[in-house]
Amino acid sequence: MHLFDQAIHLKNQNGRLWGRTSAAYANMVGPFGGVTAAAMLKGVMDHPDRLGEPLSQTVNFAAPVQAGEFEVQVRPLRTNRSTQHWLMTLEQDGQPAATSTALFARRRETWSSTELAFPDVPPMDAVKRLSNDALPPWPANYDIRFVKGTPTFFAPIQEEKAADSETVQWVRDDPPRPLDFLSLTAMCDIFFPRIFFRRRRFMPVGTVTMTNFFHVDEKFLAAFGDREILAVARANRFGLGYFDQTAALWSQDGTLLATSTQMVYFKSS
Amino acid sequence: MHLFDQAIHLKNQNGRLWGRTSAAYANMVGPFGGVTAAAMLKGVMDHPDRLGEPLSQTVNFAAPVQAGEFEVQVRPLRTNRSTQHWLMTLEQDGQPAATSTALFARRRETWSSTELAFPDVPPMDAVKRLSNDALPPWPANYDIRFVKGTPTFFAPIQEEKAADSETVQWVRDDPPRPLDFLSLTAMCDIFFPRIFFRRRRFMPVGTVTMTNFFHVDEKFLAAFGDREILAVARANRFGLGYFDQTAALWSQDGTLLATSTQMVYFKSS
Repeated sequence: MHLFDQAIHLKNQNGRLWGRTSAAYANMVGPFGGVTAAAMLKGVMDHPDRLGEPLSQTVNFAAPVQAGEFEVQVRPLRTNRSTQHWLMTLEQDGQPAATSTALFARRRETWSSTELAFPDVPPMDAVKRLSNDALPPWPANYDIRFVKGTPTFFAPIQEEKAADSETVQWVRDDPPRPLDFLSLTAMCDIFFPRIFFRRRRFMPVGTVTMTNFFHVDEKFLAAFGDREILAVARANRFGLGYFDQTAALWSQDGTLLATSTQMVYFKSS
Repeated sequence: MHLFDQAIHLKNQNGRLWGRTSAAYANMVGPFGGVTAAAMLKGVMDHPDRLGEPLSQTVNFAAPVQAGEFEVQVRPLRTNRSTQHWLMTLEQDGQPAATSTALFARRRETWSSTELAFPDVPPMDAVKRLSNDALPPWPANYDIRFVKGTPTFFAPIQEEKAADSETVQWVRDDPPRPLDFLSLTAMCDIFFPRIFFRRRRFMPVGTVTMTNFFHVDEKFLAAFGDREILAVARANRFGLGYFDQTAALWSQDGTLLATSTQMVYFKSS
């Protein structure tokens, strides 16, 4: 089993869903948030009453997930003809460490158009892979190649500030794994904190909430395979102890797969 | 009392919160979503256990809110030292018509920077006010002036398509009302559907989920008064029966007040 599937695996014991944190996907404090989000979404994907496929998910990170077991609770709050609303929690010691809502929908072919511009980038093969040397464990599960914004923030603090925090990176599971809604969810969080790029230094940070929108359906993903994804992220505003991040995930040939926004705490004067 | 405050007023009866839909803020089907979001946020603002101020809110619109009474239930799911996680529901006949999560936080002065560019626009006074003639009731509560993308979609269907769905509009409560987190929440939803602009035609649509991030604090809003707001919205992707909307709300002098994303259902081949 792929380490990602182990990290989001939920064991069903008499209707209760139990997961276990994965050392391979550990971050600075607790697990990589993308895996926490994916584990909660998996609770719905596996649910016998699920209707349709993921359209959106919001995850609120309420406390660090401790190493070990956790319980995922999922509950359909409302089921309509073509949409379904879910509430999920990830609990440890009877306290929620994360809460989430998700909207599932029956998708159908309609008029379509992409307004967001696909960036002009070199192919993945032409870009050097990020070394995982000074990083926490989780990025080693991805082949990450920076087209714009190579991380330099684990080096000694540099005085020069970046003009903006935009980064562009190629991403693929390593070892390869066919893309699905669960790995796409995790990849919505595959970005290093914007403030690290902007200020070119490391500081304590933590994502407190993330919302992902899915722009493709199961049929598209089933045919996608394990091809690379282009992941673009920027910040709109830093201030009052938080900054936001806006991200777009693309296929190599310019299909917008998902968009994501998050708010991130930062500790700095 | 301002009609907006009437529309989001919650009566506390033995700890249960009851609201009533406002005919003044009616939309095509059910109330203006911005008022529904604000009413749910008000439940938290009024709660005796509230810590800090709104940082983010996600609202999932699960079913049309019927004209009449509704109950708002709010519950703190986790309280930390400087953040607090809330779950809210808006119910009618014991069924949730909307669900919401919100994150409250103690904000503090830190390093700050805005990366999103403030658009080059004429002052509000130089722009013609939108007529509410062919519109549902809710926009009449706002002085809306389009700088880019004047709505033409209530006119007979036009063949010519727009190049993109971006719109830029000045907005103010009418009659004026000092801005607070509740009216700012409503204004995060003050946009007409992107697909109406892009395809220059009317069709059945409905926002299914909206996430708002707040970039200013109570102190800033208390000093803001009833000044105008610049509201910018665009779409990234239309397809498979849904489109997204990304929005930014600015003060007249370029302070980013809030950013917002939503997913919207559309019925069209």
